[in-house]
Amino acid sequence: MVKYQSPLRIFNPRAVQITNLPAYPTKKGPPLFLLMMRINLKVALLCMCTAVFLITLSLWTKCGGIGGSSTTYASSSSSSSSSSSSAAIVSRLSGSIFPQQDNQEIHEIECHINGEYTIGCRKEGDEVYVPFSFLHRYFEIYGKITNNDGYERFEWAHSHSKVYRPKGKYDPRGVFMFFENYNVEPRDRVKCVSGTEGVPVSTQWEVQGYYYPTQIAQFGLSHYSKNLTDPEPSRKVIEDSDHKYAKWTVPIGATINRTDKHSWTHYLEFTTPESLSSAVTLKLDHVLDFVLSMHVNLKGNGSISVMLQNREKKEIFNLHYITSDVMISIQGENIYHGIGLTSGWRKITRDLVVDLQKGLALLDKPKRKLSRSKLKVIGISLHGMGAIDNLTLSSSEHMAQFYDAARWFVKHQDPTTGGWANPVRRRVALGFGDLEPGWYSAMGQGHAISVLSRAYYHSGDKQYLRAAIEGLRPFRIPSWQGGVLATFLGKYAWYEEYPTKPASFVLNGFIYSLLGLYDLKSIAPVGQAKEANLLFEQGWSSLKGMLLLYDTGSGTTYDLRHFTLGIAPNLARWDYHATHVNQLLFLATIDNDPLIKNTAERWLDYMSGKRASHN
Amino acid sequence: MVKYQSPLRIFNPRAVQITNLPAYPTKKGPPLFLLMMRINLKVALLCMCTAVFLITLSLWTKCGGIGGSSTTYASSSSSSSSSSSSAAIVSRLSGSIFPQQDNQEIHEIECHINGEYTIGCRKEGDEVYVPFSFLHRYFEIYGKITNNDGYERFEWAHSHSKVYRPKGKYDPRGVFMFFENYNVEPRDRVKCVSGTEGVPVSTQWEVQGYYYPTQIAQFGLSHYSKNLTDPEPSRKVIEDSDHKYAKWTVPIGATINRTDKHSWTHYLEFTTPESLSSAVTLKLDHVLDFVLSMHVNLKGNGSISVMLQNREKKEIFNLHYITSDVMISIQGENIYHGIGLTSGWRKITRDLVVDLQKGLALLDKPKRKLSRSKLKVIGISLHGMGAIDNLTLSSSEHMAQFYDAARWFVKHQDPTTGGWANPVRRRVALGFGDLEPGWYSAMGQGHAISVLSRAYYHSGDKQYLRAAIEGLRPFRIPSWQGGVLATFLGKYAWYEEYPTKPASFVLNGFIYSLLGLYDLKSIAPVGQAKEANLLFEQGWSSLKGMLLLYDTGSGTTYDLRHFTLGIAPNLARWDYHATHVNQLLFLATIDNDPLIKNTAERWLDYMSGKRASHN
Repeated sequence: MVKYQSPLRIFNPRAVQITNLPAYPTKKGPPLFLLMMRINLKVALLCMCTAVFLITLSLWTKCGGIGGSSTTYASSSSSSSSSSSSAAIVSRLSGSIFPQQDNQEIHEIECHINGEYTIGCRKEGDEVYVPFSFLHRYFEIYGKITNNDGYERFEWAHSHSKVYRPKGKYDPRGVFMFFENYNVEPRDRVKCVSGTEGVPVSTQWEVQGYYYPTQIAQFGLSHYSKNLTDPEPSRKVIEDSDHKYAKWTVPIGATINRTDKHSWTHYLEFTTPESLSSAVTLKLDHVLDFVLSMHVNLKGNGSISVMLQNREKKEIFNLHYITSDVMISIQGENIYHGIGLTSGWRKITRDLVVDLQKGLALLDKPKRKLSRSKLKVIGISLHGMGAIDNLTLSSSEHMAQFYDAARWFVKHQDPTTGGWANPVRRRVALGFGDLEPGWYSAMGQGHAISVLSRAYYHSGDKQYLRAAIEGLRPFRIPSWQGGVLATFLGKYAWYEEYPTKPASFVLNGFIYSLLGLYDLKSIAPVGQAKEANLLFEQGWSSLKGMLLLYDTGSGTTYDLRHFTLGIAPNLARWDYHATHVNQLLFLATIDNDPLIKNTAERWLDYMSGKRASHN
Repeated sequence: MVKYQSPLRIFNPRAVQITNLPAYPTKKGPPLFLLMMRINLKVALLCMCTAVFLITLSLWTKCGGIGGSSTTYASSSSSSSSSSSSAAIVSRLSGSIFPQQDNQEIHEIECHINGEYTIGCRKEGDEVYVPFSFLHRYFEIYGKITNNDGYERFEWAHSHSKVYRPKGKYDPRGVFMFFENYNVEPRDRVKCVSGTEGVPVSTQWEVQGYYYPTQIAQFGLSHYSKNLTDPEPSRKVIEDSDHKYAKWTVPIGATINRTDKHSWTHYLEFTTPESLSSAVTLKLDHVLDFVLSMHVNLKGNGSISVMLQNREKKEIFNLHYITSDVMISIQGENIYHGIGLTSGWRKITRDLVVDLQKGLALLDKPKRKLSRSKLKVIGISLHGMGAIDNLTLSSSEHMAQFYDAARWFVKHQDPTTGGWANPVRRRVALGFGDLEPGWYSAMGQGHAISVLSRAYYHSGDKQYLRAAIEGLRPFRIPSWQGGVLATFLGKYAWYEEYPTKPASFVLNGFIYSLLGLYDLKSIAPVGQAKEANLLFEQGWSSLKGMLLLYDTGSGTTYDLRHFTLGIAPNLARWDYHATHVNQLLFLATIDNDPLIKNTAERWLDYMSGKRASHN
């Protein structure tokens, strides 16, 4: 129970006390006005002055002087002693004036903070009240006033971040941890989803954009996970040239043709003159399903465009998918995504809203908000020369997007090292040597292995398994030789998210790398799981040995740079702390060592202000 | 600068506003009352009613309706509308009522803490005020209201502990760190100062009392340090049988005799009958100097007693120093300290006030407070058979007490191991094996070496140097073999204050042990400093390597039990944290590696609420 909760107070004792000196009893005698008429001027004036004084005094007292301390409000019972008439009027008038406690007066008091500076506080009785805006800065806690059904209260939050409790034992074939809650591509630091690769392009450490394996893997894993947790998507096939023919408008000089070149399917061939106005067009009026997927084979400068309309503002945007290497550009209401210069059939999957947002983001700061619910697809047009098939609008195409990521990892793995290179220079912190472009990340490797293991599990395609196993190689190579392996005082092997010199020992990235190893060792056929298993066991032992080094007694550190650089600890912000907790909660489902579980629970407690005890 | 700092306010702006509207304009026209007398009753009453209404409305608006948000107050220019005359009176009546800001209303609001429980807060404008008593519990911060010259303010303290900044480079021949501020023997966990050894007896881990080397060394080091920092003591020789003869009262049957058995000095021999009333007595009326020192040689059951009087209450206490092994006992107003059964000349040094307090502490809980300023020595008596010399009362005898400690270490060192045993079982924490009686402490060894090094430096007596060098031996013996040496992951040697299994890596004890090594390596002749130097260098490297493991970003841990036991960190309370800071500040004077200095300053900052930043 809380010490500060003070008892219900139903009337204002001081108000009663004060108004016990009434000018005119209202019940026991004639009305004030009539009485006044009978007495002489001086008395009348004196009485009126007294009334003015008393009312003023009463209001003033309520207003400024005395604070109550009760936390609940009760309507004061209408006391009928004449003594409180003026107070009663005030009370009825004021309604919300808080009942004041006897002899409790609120006044300002200076709070002198650690002998350094002064803030304004309030004093009431023995209690001193400290302004929250100061506490917010001093302790970095959060608070806001909420109003539910007219009942205002202040919500104090030690942290905001979300912790996901696992629903069962972690399954390498299933949802990747809590990644069904991740939405990678809308993030600000994603420039766009590449038209050629179908995977996000990061601007986190280089503004022109680059392929960041960790992010691509998270994109893949989130779609894989959402596929398992989202409801079945709605899908509308617009044109497949087999069963579904769309009503294309073909202008003069243009042609379409549903061929049967492939034995197993038909597709739609088109040719149009150069001018855009002579495109083959299809009018649509489609809401909610904004993931476009199709097979496409463009020749020359063929292109496919989708017209979106903002239903409120009636703005129209054109998304053009063009034969080009341009990643993304915008001109007026036209947004261009290059889907590459090479010809041949391929499947593309585009989240139209993401493509629109990323295009507009090139113009706008601050970012324009575009709600899916306010958009509709009003047309598709084909231009130049090319062919399409299986043109579909869906609410989601998670597995297609997952496989875009999985294929990216197969395609972009270094055949010599097994690594997926981070093509940007990265300075983790002053004191660490820069990571030169081409560095590998244990987190990127591990995440990629999680993607590839699932792709292998889901498809049975051994190219994914091979790539996953190849991806283990950097785990054996020390950071200073281009790998991701650090050791803590020669004792504990650590897989570095950032293979810095000296080592940085980032915790969350290490745990993600362990999960990659766990996924592979669990999914790979026994004969091919050995290396993953060895690496996992080695890392698992390090995790258990070193985990408590991250525990500050009130939170966690993000890494051990304080140890390796001899500087202040790099405390994990609540987001990362919550990630640590999430990770441990999942790890606790695959190993019942109480160390993991107990640490997770204690770290969770830190998020609501609990602390380790001191001696 | 601080947002909340509100400027000093010397008057109440609203009061000014109000009081500028007198009921009786004294300058600009006839007084209100006279004016009123001239007009007719109805008009007067109408005016008064209007006034009542307007005042009420005005106050109401201020009071209840509209909230402002500024935290600073500006003196309003004195507007002179007549509506607030009575408020001025109120203001004068209420006196301490805090000036309310226009349109600022304080009312209660529930604060819901982390969704767990609710406390009562206050809301004023946009600001929410949180009760300090909650903050005290939640964040463990301190605060109290101070009142200087009638100016009340609230002192917010993140921590209370004191940090001593070194005045110069640490000198092994000088003050031991900041130990001139230590007062070991008055502590509650000191049972008494042993009559036979002249050193404190601890009850920290065993109530009957035992010799705790660490405490004895701190006793010695504090007296050594105080000797260097205290002003020259006042000393009054009472009886030396050479130049100073006291006026002893010798009853019938008793004798005294100033012999010249020693060629170089005389002393006072005494014999008395059995009964206490026939003691040889000396009346005194001595204040302020309460340290008794003398050479003494008692035969049989000879004893020496000192009579103290509480000047206020006129209570009399007798301190008896007797030929006995009894450590300390009390019967009524008689307190007994045994000074041993062996005969022969020895010097004893007794802080009479400490002896009195320790005696009374056997009776009293809570401890009776006895101020030195309220006591006086009113007599000394000699009983039985014996001899005394150089009977002196001093304000302090720091070096005598220091040498009592130094001699204790020479006398009680284990000749085989070089250790000073802790004769009690100690359970450091659940999870650690118990330390069995006889364990050594690196802190105890180091402190003893600091004492012995100084004794050697001060006296030139090689027995101290030998004991100090012997005291190094446990530093090479692993904890599990009875020594004090642990290693951190096989890499860093650590000298354990508590040689637990697994290791506990207590920081402050380790640093104290390093200082012992530093003292010896600095003071010992070059040929004999080698081992101390090697051990110091080895430990110094460990300290630098491991120091940051104790940094939580907002304080420090006391040890590394979280790492070795896999449990919650044992956070250092501010006292210990301050010790860490003090130690580093001193270490920074002997090594200019910025690691030490910067860490010390950051840790100091934690004491006023600063934190390491998060990512």
